Amino acid sequence: MSLRVADIGEKELVKYIIANSKEITADDTAVTQFSSTNLISTCDMLIQSRHFPENMSYFNMGFKAVTVNVSDLAAMGAEPLGFLLAIAIPKDLELESFKEIIDGVLSACDYYSIPLIGGDTNEASEIIISGTALGLCDEPLMMDNYSIGDVVAVTGDIGLAALGFELEDFNNIYVKKALKPLARINEGITLKNSGATSATDITDGLASELYQIKKNSFGFMIYEELLNISDEYKQYCKNLGLNYLDLVFHVGEDFELLFTIPKDKLKNLDIDYRVIGEVTDSDVVELTLENGFVEKIKNKGYEHYVSE
Amino acid sequence: MSLRVADIGEKELVKYIIANSKEITADDTAVTQFSSTNLISTCDMLIQSRHFPENMSYFNMGFKAVTVNVSDLAAMGAEPLGFLLAIAIPKDLELESFKEIIDGVLSACDYYSIPLIGGDTNEASEIIISGTALGLCDEPLMMDNYSIGDVVAVTGDIGLAALGFELEDFNNIYVKKALKPLARINEGITLKNSGATSATDITDGLASELYQIKKNSFGFMIYEELLNISDEYKQYCKNLGLNYLDLVFHVGEDFELLFTIPKDKLKNLDIDYRVIGEVTDSDVVELTLENGFVEKIKNKGYEHYVSE
Repeated sequence: MSLRVADIGEKELVKYIIANSKEITADDTAVTQFSSTNLISTCDMLIQSRHFPENMSYFNMGFKAVTVNVSDLAAMGAEPLGFLLAIAIPKDLELESFKEIIDGVLSACDYYSIPLIGGDTNEASEIIISGTALGLCDEPLMMDNYSIGDVVAVTGDIGLAALGFELEDFNNIYVKKALKPLARINEGITLKNSGATSATDITDGLASELYQIKKNSFGFMIYEELLNISDEYKQYCKNLGLNYLDLVFHVGEDFELLFTIPKDKLKNLDIDYRVIGEVTDSDVVELTLENGFVEKIKNKGYEHYVSE
Repeated sequence: MSLRVADIGEKELVKYIIANSKEITADDTAVTQFSSTNLISTCDMLIQSRHFPENMSYFNMGFKAVTVNVSDLAAMGAEPLGFLLAIAIPKDLELESFKEIIDGVLSACDYYSIPLIGGDTNEASEIIISGTALGLCDEPLMMDNYSIGDVVAVTGDIGLAALGFELEDFNNIYVKKALKPLARINEGITLKNSGATSATDITDGLASELYQIKKNSFGFMIYEELLNISDEYKQYCKNLGLNYLDLVFHVGEDFELLFTIPKDKLKNLDIDYRVIGEVTDSDVVELTLENGFVEKIKNKGYEHYVSE
């Protein structure tokens, strides 16, 4: 009985690729030295049945395909350079729907000031969009150059999209975040210029990203009271029979930046942000709950393939 | 009854994208000015049910995903810089099969001296591979800078893969070309440095590419006797009940370079090539048959979506 990819999970597959390539940077994007700067490049593929909720418009599908890639540029503090779009669509898709997807892509490119410079069209049984974002950065913000004592912060409230995926009613910030997340490209550039020590974008969940950036001998202490989880949020979760901390930590799709920065650099940091914790020497990833108890944050996030 | 994408075809979809983007170069790749050179970037997506014949190995699927993208770099005369791989696979795919795909990708990256620098893994109902190739080129070889009197040439025999798709037996050059085509990256660089005036790679068929590069007031005269179509090739086609000119002109998947060059530059051109015709002022794309008759070459090639 031979092993299937579902038996080992996406992270192990990625490890196989990295172990066999000499030149892969294990960070949010590739970094390629280029004249006096660096070419920053990344690609991400979105698959209709897996990434686009039922109630997502064609326009927002196109918009998101750009967002997920620009978000990786943001995590490096890169200036956008160009975007390439490879899109496959079913042949019976309505022409108007195709145009709406493209309009979404172009709208996002305009929003992020990243010109659409090329691409490819194809036919498949469902909508598949693979985007490549290119950027430039003299000193890219890697994901793990923090020191003990640095604060841990985020560029916006976490967990909103996760709740949005559970709700039906359109008219609330949670569903809006779920259907049209935004990449923090300007914030990333400002962080890079303001002495931030590391950054990554939150896609698979805050817990998953904390473990992704964790180094040996380092740990993180996050404080629930700093996460700004509203009473409304907790009530929605209670009504749905869901654990609100689970949604905040273990689902993702936030696209906010998780970053570290020395305390003394905070006063000159000119973006919206929220400090949620600090870098420690505990070698564990922990949460101090509102009631004062401390628990280990589980390394659980969204992962493809893993069998239930 | 609303229009479907199948009603208008792939080329019209691409036109919609180009018409609405300010910065798309309508050539084989994107060209982005950078320092004293240009960043050359391109992406192409391969979909298992459409691009991989039944008898194609997992290794060759991976290899081809790199080839189709590097071929576009070759068409510009670019030096390879890096490759990004976005791959989606079914969760019940055997782990060994996944590894073979990756081994094919890495083998091709090694063959073309283009390092794998990043990528993304995903889950889908079939294997989908989207590659992005990045290169550098000081003076990219565009697809239509030819003059009247330039010769038209190719870097190898045309139509071999097209026949290969029709055959079952593995042990012949046609099937080998179909299952493992090679990009002409070194030839592209040499052409750029040797005074070639234009180049493109042949993917949708020689006819399709000639019409792709055709400018108003210009034409091409191709000579059947220069195409080097072997008796064996004609016999295979006859046995299959196929028109050999149809296979040579209207199927594609050759990945040879189609290029133009002034006659006097040929003697210093240090690559394998075959002159097949010339650039004219006829404003039509024509073929002089072996029997001397001249006919117009139909603008017919492989196109996604078009309803039969």
